[in-house]
Amino acid sequence: MPSSGIRYATLEEYVAAIRREVKAVTSAAEEVPLTLLSGLILAEDIISPTDLPTYATSLVDGYAVRAEDTAASSGDNPLIFKIAGKVELEHLPSFNLNRNEVSYIPTGGVLPEGADAVVKIEEATVLEEGVSIILTHPIFAGEHVTQAGRDVKKGQPVLRRGHRIRPEDLALLAAVRTWRVKTVKQPRVAVLSIGDELTDRVEEVTSTRKYNGINAAVMQLVAESGCVPVQLGIASDDEASIEHKIRQGLALADAVFTIGGTSRGVKDLVANAVDRSGRPGLLLHGVDVVPGRVSGLGVVDGKPIVMLPGLMQSTIAAFLLISLPAIRRLQGLEPETEHLQILVPLSEDIHLLHNPFRKLFFIRLIKLGDATAAKPISKLGEASLMKPIVDADGFILLPPLPTSVHQGEHVTVNLLHTYRNNAASEEQ
Amino acid sequence: MPSSGIRYATLEEYVAAIRREVKAVTSAAEEVPLTLLSGLILAEDIISPTDLPTYATSLVDGYAVRAEDTAASSGDNPLIFKIAGKVELEHLPSFNLNRNEVSYIPTGGVLPEGADAVVKIEEATVLEEGVSIILTHPIFAGEHVTQAGRDVKKGQPVLRRGHRIRPEDLALLAAVRTWRVKTVKQPRVAVLSIGDELTDRVEEVTSTRKYNGINAAVMQLVAESGCVPVQLGIASDDEASIEHKIRQGLALADAVFTIGGTSRGVKDLVANAVDRSGRPGLLLHGVDVVPGRVSGLGVVDGKPIVMLPGLMQSTIAAFLLISLPAIRRLQGLEPETEHLQILVPLSEDIHLLHNPFRKLFFIRLIKLGDATAAKPISKLGEASLMKPIVDADGFILLPPLPTSVHQGEHVTVNLLHTYRNNAASEEQ
Repeated sequence: MPSSGIRYATLEEYVAAIRREVKAVTSAAEEVPLTLLSGLILAEDIISPTDLPTYATSLVDGYAVRAEDTAASSGDNPLIFKIAGKVELEHLPSFNLNRNEVSYIPTGGVLPEGADAVVKIEEATVLEEGVSIILTHPIFAGEHVTQAGRDVKKGQPVLRRGHRIRPEDLALLAAVRTWRVKTVKQPRVAVLSIGDELTDRVEEVTSTRKYNGINAAVMQLVAESGCVPVQLGIASDDEASIEHKIRQGLALADAVFTIGGTSRGVKDLVANAVDRSGRPGLLLHGVDVVPGRVSGLGVVDGKPIVMLPGLMQSTIAAFLLISLPAIRRLQGLEPETEHLQILVPLSEDIHLLHNPFRKLFFIRLIKLGDATAAKPISKLGEASLMKPIVDADGFILLPPLPTSVHQGEHVTVNLLHTYRNNAASEEQ
Repeated sequence: MPSSGIRYATLEEYVAAIRREVKAVTSAAEEVPLTLLSGLILAEDIISPTDLPTYATSLVDGYAVRAEDTAASSGDNPLIFKIAGKVELEHLPSFNLNRNEVSYIPTGGVLPEGADAVVKIEEATVLEEGVSIILTHPIFAGEHVTQAGRDVKKGQPVLRRGHRIRPEDLALLAAVRTWRVKTVKQPRVAVLSIGDELTDRVEEVTSTRKYNGINAAVMQLVAESGCVPVQLGIASDDEASIEHKIRQGLALADAVFTIGGTSRGVKDLVANAVDRSGRPGLLLHGVDVVPGRVSGLGVVDGKPIVMLPGLMQSTIAAFLLISLPAIRRLQGLEPETEHLQILVPLSEDIHLLHNPFRKLFFIRLIKLGDATAAKPISKLGEASLMKPIVDADGFILLPPLPTSVHQGEHVTVNLLHTYRNNAASEEQ
């Protein structure tokens, strides 16, 4: 599609085009050992091959008992129990408990056969060291015991494909004896800025020659999204230069994200350069979201070229809404965003212009009464302002209609720099 | 203080002891260039040395105008304006606008002197290319213009000490021409597990010999907290071995976190080993929080030794409540936790045992009606269960009293793996 001006396609059209045209680069998922997994994204569901705990275990240091034997014990009727053995953490118990027998058991120790409860060490009186104890109250079956399978059942999924592994997940993976897991391949994403006014050399900065800071931000967002960023630098406002750099990016990486030069001004040459870079070329130019509406998407040989606008709020909005789904598709995942979302009331009215675009607002979480509310801190038509993004905890995306949203109405906040937790099984 | 059993000190006593006894290792804050800053923690406030934007700039591609000159223009009364020049992004305008003059201006271009508004390129009709245009409606002063200082004012703090730098912050730092900033030194934290039943070799795992997975989790939590983790491995259940390893950790690192061996069972030797490792030695053993109440804190020569309990939920709770403040103190910051917090209703009643401890519950965020609610997914007395932590989005900390919290009451959720945003200025 040669560029013949902007048509504001819907976000859904973008996601559909990404799903249809972009090829996943996950053909060879990487198998990674446990200690190196943190921050990587699972390419497979993790199913527990075992009950966890595998055996009933003690929650305290104490004595394993047969609960029924203790039923009659009280202060008036202290009962004596024989110490039949000692459970050690290093071994499964090699003995059973018979009637009126107990055994010493440490925290985490496996209950010997016959035992079904544990009494804390400080609640028993030693009658003869290593030989017998006295109990003065009944112990209930199951007391201070973790039953086999209580934490995780054999065959239960514990972490889902697409889950981003956090430190605590490592302990669970080890407990279910999963030492190596398949993680999604990290796509290489080349980042190209466009503009004669930009420099990446601090010493060249003047009042009109700007350091390419948005590029630094996008490079790090790419890294944070589980990709390897590749720096293509700056192309001048010249169609041939832009095309040359895009082709270079396509040769080096699995995707190219361009920044700037996407609107309809006299120097806006990116759309044509994208279209000339290969097949199928430019797919969409314009999206029904402000800020960000002059974004675009091309694809060459299954590799996405996301055209991010150059004003900061537009750049970030388009990255969140178009680049992230493209990255997830490259990773072999569903092309959706993966932020942790919360539904909270809006702290103040938002009055919107009646226009056909969805509106993205950056918000900060504030305390309003006894609850958290979302306070809009960006304004439409001020896409160049950076501070609202830096101050933001999240963003909301409002539909074209209605034209006002009132204080107290609940909005869905996508929390920036968070990831939805794919750990819980469906029943939770 | 030699260990003479457990006294359940308050969390506040822990934080006070950390503040008093632990020495910051920030004497030499590290100055880091912009592109390497992401994820590091600021050691200084960043104050903008300039207005941002420095000059009034255009939000669109169009023509800079003097608004007053356009007041009378309408469809019935089209007015002609002379194109006096062309603003280029690379230079400050070298010309002024006189009466009935306009100039071409690109998005982000600086307004020439005299101009106070911009009309979009598509809203003007070219009369003679490069010479004159026609306007058929009035343009309001300030239209499509970002005023100087609208984003950030000179002297305004843009990011605060203790802020963890995110990708988007890089763009703002570059815009305010801050190329190098001081970040807190990353403390070295040595992690030691205690227990004869543990192994760090996968091939040695049996039904009772466990892989040291909690250690892997703590190592990664340490890294995530802005520290360099140092692996001390496993000490056997033997006071001399533990003391030897702790001394080794103190020689290699700025802090030692031990895992396990902190309760009052027959093998619980860590408290004594900590106390014998140097001066002042063991400070506190026991904290008023479940899970985690058998935690402890020692200090040797200003280096904290945090005794984390060995059952997963206790380990993580003590890490969140005691290790994180100790780390922040080492980093030269206030010893507090830094999670993003939200106030949301509880999804169900919690009935608590009447005991003198604060209670920590892991929660998952769920949708309840049209709002987000916090669903408790851990239970007291089940500290060995791992799945509730892995399923959790956050945690809540309830006081000893009252003994029940009802559905719909608002609770403060600390979101795991998030960081409070220190960007906003106080007025927001």
